Amino acid sequence: MHPVEIVLSPRLRTTPYEQRVFEQGVKSVTIYNHMTLPVNFTDTEDEYRHLCEHVQVWDVAAERQVEVSGKDALELVELITPRHIAPCAVGQGVYAPLADQDGLVVNDPIILRLAEDRFWISIADSDVMLWVKGVAYGRGMDVNVFEPDVSPLAVQGPRADDLMADLVGEHARSIKFFRFIETTIAGAPVVLARSGWSGQGGFEIYLQDSACGLALWDAVWQAGQKYQIRAGSPNLIERLETGLKSYGSDMTHDDHVLECGFEKFINLDKPAEFMARDSIGQFESKGVKRRLVNLMVENERLPPLRSKWSLQSAGRVVGSASSCAYSPKYKASLLFAMVEAGAAAPGSKVELEIDGGRYTAVVKGDRWQ
Amino acid sequence: MHPVEIVLSPRLRTTPYEQRVFEQGVKSVTIYNHMTLPVNFTDTEDEYRHLCEHVQVWDVAAERQVEVSGKDALELVELITPRHIAPCAVGQGVYAPLADQDGLVVNDPIILRLAEDRFWISIADSDVMLWVKGVAYGRGMDVNVFEPDVSPLAVQGPRADDLMADLVGEHARSIKFFRFIETTIAGAPVVLARSGWSGQGGFEIYLQDSACGLALWDAVWQAGQKYQIRAGSPNLIERLETGLKSYGSDMTHDDHVLECGFEKFINLDKPAEFMARDSIGQFESKGVKRRLVNLMVENERLPPLRSKWSLQSAGRVVGSASSCAYSPKYKASLLFAMVEAGAAAPGSKVELEIDGGRYTAVVKGDRWQ
Repeated sequence: MHPVEIVLSPRLRTTPYEQRVFEQGVKSVTIYNHMTLPVNFTDTEDEYRHLCEHVQVWDVAAERQVEVSGKDALELVELITPRHIAPCAVGQGVYAPLADQDGLVVNDPIILRLAEDRFWISIADSDVMLWVKGVAYGRGMDVNVFEPDVSPLAVQGPRADDLMADLVGEHARSIKFFRFIETTIAGAPVVLARSGWSGQGGFEIYLQDSACGLALWDAVWQAGQKYQIRAGSPNLIERLETGLKSYGSDMTHDDHVLECGFEKFINLDKPAEFMARDSIGQFESKGVKRRLVNLMVENERLPPLRSKWSLQSAGRVVGSASSCAYSPKYKASLLFAMVEAGAAAPGSKVELEIDGGRYTAVVKGDRWQ
Repeated sequence: MHPVEIVLSPRLRTTPYEQRVFEQGVKSVTIYNHMTLPVNFTDTEDEYRHLCEHVQVWDVAAERQVEVSGKDALELVELITPRHIAPCAVGQGVYAPLADQDGLVVNDPIILRLAEDRFWISIADSDVMLWVKGVAYGRGMDVNVFEPDVSPLAVQGPRADDLMADLVGEHARSIKFFRFIETTIAGAPVVLARSGWSGQGGFEIYLQDSACGLALWDAVWQAGQKYQIRAGSPNLIERLETGLKSYGSDMTHDDHVLECGFEKFINLDKPAEFMARDSIGQFESKGVKRRLVNLMVENERLPPLRSKWSLQSAGRVVGSASSCAYSPKYKASLLFAMVEAGAAAPGSKVELEIDGGRYTAVVKGDRWQ
């Protein structure tokens, strides 16, 4: 396959930062929630090395928000996720898979609680708003569900704390993981959260007025000059090393929450109704048939994948791999894959064939141990 | 803005025809329903001229289907659209805007009736399945809602009938507009419909087994050799000339069905419950504030638009344009735009400024008269 250009028509929404992204020489993008999401400015490995040493600013406006507010907001948010949301404090976010009545994953957002009865569902790539609106309508619930004018800008990397302390004050350092404050930066109203799609630490700045996008970017950019800031994006190598799964590839609406390693985010006995309860109960008693696992192919640099790679064991298909990158840290290709439960235990081996070459991949634990 | 590459990861789904699309030298694509949709093989004007004279094969697998079947299928389909669906015969499709309880457009699909209690909603670019599943769950309806393995391949252009008669037999010519038959082509199970996203006539072949994609493409390709077939895609110039609006740009979930020119697809008194009834009734009594219209700038070749262009009248913003192409037929740039009702009458003029140039656009009727 040869490289192809993306035609950026108005159907693929612009971000408030797009002008700066192009000025920084963006080379490739993807489309996420009907919006551009930058992928590369130089190349993935160069950007990975920079991210792990310095600090980057990422246009992640494509992480859209679905606001749920009103009298029945908590009841509705509880209904759509197996995680118990009531204990989440105002000013806190929680990672919470969304699942329907069959236990199928609809998305894997962070849910931020802005007030007792006001939430932002900060989504991966699917139209969660339509689903939530449909459920709320069908149930006759008293809520507002809409996409607010909120566009996250991420600041990620080991120098993110230093940059943010310079930009908004030393108190930024004391924001705890998945906690947020409401403040202004360069005159722009923002929610400032310690979170982000890397294991390098940092912040997500939820800009609440898209007209202030360039001013916010410029303020971050200027504060980052002494820390060798660069424009970046969620990095494939880094996310594999950190173990971050991506909705739409590593898990889809064809997968059950219990197959995706979400056990620790499921509170089956939470004191609130939720759609997936019966299905999860049945799956738990029967046992899951497939599991999302980490795979490693040592000392091999596998090519990028366009679509899923079939995995075999003893001449039989036992699953498929959905993400792959070569890790300089592990000197191995790292993969995420959905495999039969019988092949999912750490140490299990599966075979894959790529462009005529045959490779053996070993199932690893969550942290590649 | 410089050209950028799209990174085709597994999250952006492949189509059953993708290998042939690349072999035909696709230069650019867009993303539609989380799947690739080709845009250009040569350039838009060259492809337009070919489409209007010969026949093309289009990979439109990204027009996904949402299947609704089961006891309450008709009731559910009626609920989500203001159009009366009961009169639609088995073997027929109808264009039917979907609208929520606020009258906001969710999508503008063709709904195909495969059996009394089995429908395919053939969608534009939004996750209709999630919305329909949410509504059905909330209402406790007895239906199955899912995305079947169905991938349309379009055959469009004035020689489409000749090609299809050669391929499946003379009876193909007698398929009426928006009617379909179930048959096989090259061993592949298909629904063959007279429809498609152009005004040049032709068919959409709804392939029901993605494993047969290349065989189907090759059969169409071979039958098309004597008609100078080429690989193409929905053509920007042709769709402007034909007046085909695109969901996500020309109308979005921010727009009311009555603002989008859907009056003729709304049956306010249909004998079935539908979500948008109250909202449409209220809008009709108050009058709409905006309208989606056709605009023409004569003798000017405006550039492609990345995002919407602001429209002014007497120094005041009165709307925005969402699509634009230069039409060789009309020797004018054609645009679709949402404008205030007061500026929406044919003959009204609005001003737009692009890269420092000022232009006057005239509102035209539906058929550019």
